[in-house]
Amino acid sequence: MKQIAFIGLGHMGAPMAANLLKAGYLLRVFDLVQSAVDGLVPLGASAARSAHDAVDGVDVVITMLPASQHVEGLYLGEQGLLQHIAPGTLVLECSTIAPASARKVHHAAAERRIPMLDAPVSGGVGGAVAGTLTFMVGGDAQVLEKAKPIFSAMGRNIFHAGSDGAGQVAKVCNNQLLAILMIGTAESLALGVANGLDPLVLSEIMRRSSGGNWALEVYNPWPGVMENAPASRGYEGGFLSALMAKDLGLAQEAAQLTGNSTPLGSLATSLYRLLLKQGFGDKDFSVVQKLFDQGL
Amino acid sequence: MKQIAFIGLGHMGAPMAANLLKAGYLLRVFDLVQSAVDGLVPLGASAARSAHDAVDGVDVVITMLPASQHVEGLYLGEQGLLQHIAPGTLVLECSTIAPASARKVHHAAAERRIPMLDAPVSGGVGGAVAGTLTFMVGGDAQVLEKAKPIFSAMGRNIFHAGSDGAGQVAKVCNNQLLAILMIGTAESLALGVANGLDPLVLSEIMRRSSGGNWALEVYNPWPGVMENAPASRGYEGGFLSALMAKDLGLAQEAAQLTGNSTPLGSLATSLYRLLLKQGFGDKDFSVVQKLFDQGL
Amino acid sequence: MKQIAFIGLGHMGAPMAANLLKAGYLLRVFDLVQSAVDGLVPLGASAARSAHDAVDGVDVVITMLPASQHVEGLYLGEQGLLQHIAPGTLVLECSTIAPASARKVHHAAAERRIPMLDAPVSGGVGGAVAGTLTFMVGGDAQVLEKAKPIFSAMGRNIFHAGSDGAGQVAKVCNNQLLAILMIGTAESLALGVANGLDPLVLSEIMRRSSGGNWALEVYNPWPGVMENAPASRGYEGGFLSALMAKDLGLAQEAAQLTGNSTPLGSLATSLYRLLLKQGFGDKDFSVVQKLFDQGL
Amino acid sequence: MKQIAFIGLGHMGAPMAANLLKAGYLLRVFDLVQSAVDGLVPLGASAARSAHDAVDGVDVVITMLPASQHVEGLYLGEQGLLQHIAPGTLVLECSTIAPASARKVHHAAAERRIPMLDAPVSGGVGGAVAGTLTFMVGGDAQVLEKAKPIFSAMGRNIFHAGSDGAGQVAKVCNNQLLAILMIGTAESLALGVANGLDPLVLSEIMRRSSGGNWALEVYNPWPGVMENAPASRGYEGGFLSALMAKDLGLAQEAAQLTGNSTPLGSLATSLYRLLLKQGFGDKDFSVVQKLFDQGL
Repeated sequence: MKQIAFIGLGHMGAPMAANLLKAGYLLRVFDLVQSAVDGLVPLGASAARSAHDAVDGVDVVITMLPASQHVEGLYLGEQGLLQHIAPGTLVLECSTIAPASARKVHHAAAERRIPMLDAPVSGGVGGAVAGTLTFMVGGDAQVLEKAKPIFSAMGRNIFHAGSDGAGQVAKVCNNQLLAILMIGTAESLALGVANGLDPLVLSEIMRRSSGGNWALEVYNPWPGVMENAPASRGYEGGFLSALMAKDLGLAQEAAQLTGNSTPLGSLATSLYRLLLKQGFGDKDFSVVQKLFDQGL
Repeated sequence: MKQIAFIGLGHMGAPMAANLLKAGYLLRVFDLVQSAVDGLVPLGASAARSAHDAVDGVDVVITMLPASQHVEGLYLGEQGLLQHIAPGTLVLECSTIAPASARKVHHAAAERRIPMLDAPVSGGVGGAVAGTLTFMVGGDAQVLEKAKPIFSAMGRNIFHAGSDGAGQVAKVCNNQLLAILMIGTAESLALGVANGLDPLVLSEIMRRSSGGNWALEVYNPWPGVMENAPASRGYEGGFLSALMAKDLGLAQEAAQLTGNSTPLGSLATSLYRLLLKQGFGDKDFSVVQKLFDQGL
Repeated sequence: MKQIAFIGLGHMGAPMAANLLKAGYLLRVFDLVQSAVDGLVPLGASAARSAHDAVDGVDVVITMLPASQHVEGLYLGEQGLLQHIAPGTLVLECSTIAPASARKVHHAAAERRIPMLDAPVSGGVGGAVAGTLTFMVGGDAQVLEKAKPIFSAMGRNIFHAGSDGAGQVAKVCNNQLLAILMIGTAESLALGVANGLDPLVLSEIMRRSSGGNWALEVYNPWPGVMENAPASRGYEGGFLSALMAKDLGLAQEAAQLTGNSTPLGSLATSLYRLLLKQGFGDKDFSVVQKLFDQGL
Repeated sequence: MKQIAFIGLGHMGAPMAANLLKAGYLLRVFDLVQSAVDGLVPLGASAARSAHDAVDGVDVVITMLPASQHVEGLYLGEQGLLQHIAPGTLVLECSTIAPASARKVHHAAAERRIPMLDAPVSGGVGGAVAGTLTFMVGGDAQVLEKAKPIFSAMGRNIFHAGSDGAGQVAKVCNNQLLAILMIGTAESLALGVANGLDPLVLSEIMRRSSGGNWALEVYNPWPGVMENAPASRGYEGGFLSALMAKDLGLAQEAAQLTGNSTPLGSLATSLYRLLLKQGFGDKDFSVVQKLFDQGL
């Protein structure tokens, strides 16, 4: 379990690969952007000429791609990567994609006797660099046992969410809830401030009361309340609104499959899409605070 | 500061009064329901014949009434209680009412040189009985200093939210946020379960991730996930949906005054009103879970 | 029934008064803004020095004021206008205000034996100038019979909505529905256009199908589809977003009184308040189209 | 253009086929349910043993299937119907499906030089029986010209929405708007009635004012207001809530593809899914009125 192919070296993938190198794994890396590949070589990675080349003879394949269509496009079909991966090779698919897409790849992998896990992450670029990501994993528990050392080299919390696709489901449920509590926190803060309260005082009261949530705890959306939160640096960096909109869309796809009613999740989706139309896609998702207070 | 008039001995007021008696205060109590008065007498309270009778000669007046109109009706006007309370007497108005109503009473009290605090509570009947309520207090900080021993006899956390009415504002902001995170948690759990996840596993993943919030921490809405939560005993007891609907209405009134946009809070209001129309008003507010999963 | 006091000469009141003059009525007019009074004098109105002065000896009093507090402030209380209006004088209160406020004034008028109608209008400034307003009238049917010639001098459709306050209820219900169908039309047009349809073609298909509504019929929100709609002149003029937001707030107040669930109406309220925060308050309310299409 | 294969003989397809027979066309019909096929034979249709058998040698193929997966499953793939339809045969795909699915079939048909139109209908079972359906057509205008006599035998209004898939886009936009105006009408009526108005009077006022829309015109959701509306016969028949929920889901899929914000459409989707969970899926979609008035 030493030889790893790592495909997809973007903002998340590159630092994840770097942490694996640091932990002593041997990496063959590939990305459509050559400079992304070149950036890993000085750290000890071997550059592959193609995805097919990357997976040749490795023990583990890790992929970190932007969206469902990229993952399906890479793995499936007659020219798909699964046709080139040796049976028994461990596949860790870490992209955030539709649960239905993840299940398709699981199914195709199983037919080829390739053990696979869907393992989307949370924690953002900061967590990827620091090696403190959370992995939400779907697939066989025994396969997960084998994969744990690899995940541990990149992250801190590793949750087994359930069977094939369950990692993706857990991820979209969590991020839908995150969007809801961020918007809810933002509109409640704006309501309090408009009615005369100090945002810091109100934040502290709600944080210690039944309104307490992750946003109030570590990611307050009101500028100046938390020194280290994106809100206090012009909503730069962090977890982009565009990515939150994408994840909310995946939650809506899952709801569509099962006919679930998600009134707040659907509304959150529409509100983030409004934000994107207004040009805030590349700001941290706590920028939703601006919708509710014209002075910010 | 030993003689207290306590007016309003409902589900919340009665145990709060009992805790004051336990702490050694002398209480003159009144309620329109005679049996409520009678219930306190064995614990050492003195029964007043009327609200006016109750406040005669006391150091402190505490009121705990159902809604804005009761508080305005009691205190204001030519026959209002403020005309019968001696200047300098401390008034602690603990009902949950519209901030605008609280400010009216503050204003009238100030004209009569009666120091007053608006101090709505959270923590429910359980907290009232156990003496672990949270007080969110609006009004003068020095007045609050004097009142602290009294609040401490009934509660654990005492927050100074700001000036006149700020206690009510903090309460409605917090409870709006609470409703949002409860509904958001419920619909996200239902989405995950419909897509194959175990509610307990998903709850634990989100609780420890960025979806973490008070509901997942201590008040999970899915039956069976938390043994002590209302969801696990048929949504009996706890904080009633009808009361949550009332508090959400107060938040909407505050939003109306300031022209605030509260998309999730407004939708939460409509959803709780739907629940009430469907006969769930006397169930715990986590019963909103039932909207999203027909099998529960 | 010839002598009329007309109080409130704003954008709506002034042209309404002008039409009454044109129809041969004798008017005593008053407004807090002197220039508004002065503008009516050349048309034949007599300038009153105060509201009290205006109502002295007239047969009919008409008021057209901005909001509930102005109407309550004018009519009620010991110094209120109702104390100065002779019993039997007909009062036509045409402002758009909370039904609860209208009922208060009705009640006080009845105590003084002053027949009164609440009669909010729709049709905007254009309808006020052209004398084509719609009146939605609450109060006694026989009183309405007497008032009809006066209403007819200012408008075209006169609806008897029901008893005291019913005019206001009809108005807020209608305008809530109007906001909903305008937003619904706007987001459906944007969805179709983003998916490749021509806005004019899609408008025509929906107008003639089950999506047909007033907006598609005479007030299309997409620029260029209807030459005479505000959308085709930069959303200038028409019925301002700020006024729609006000009316939606009145609907929410009514819903609060009766505990009604209004999910779309509440969301429309939040969306119009977002528009106001973004500076579109003084644009026609069809400007909501801009929320959904970044190119407009 | 006389020989037609008609596949899919459900509640809609069967009466559509019957109207084609009545107009003199020769039909070969197929459905997975044999009794559906048998029902058409007495009217003059010839029974096909399979879909492949049905299309053999015909001039036109019409399909009317439940959902995207059925249409894709029938036409596409190596065993798909398009492989068995002769180039030049006219394909009229009348199912209501995702625009993206329609485009896939268009694309595959074009590769085989088979002219195709996506032509979803509105008008319900009543319109199918009466031959008064509305067709919203996507595809080439010249192909539509040829198809018009066939559509005319089944419907009254034939709209050319645009290029490939545009028929489906127009349909989902229209039905999203229809759901919004139905819910908006229902909650506005309930608000008015709770505030004392007569539902018939309020309906008439709004119908003739700026709240006017298709529901108030011909499909009032309040029982008893319109004798012939589903609301007046226990919400039986009409356009089922389950079908509205399906169409709203298709609109959400379209919005997902283009990243459109549809706040009211998304909320309508969640509300219809709530209705389905509460067992109202097989009632007319105006049953949403019941959500807002507990007495109905």
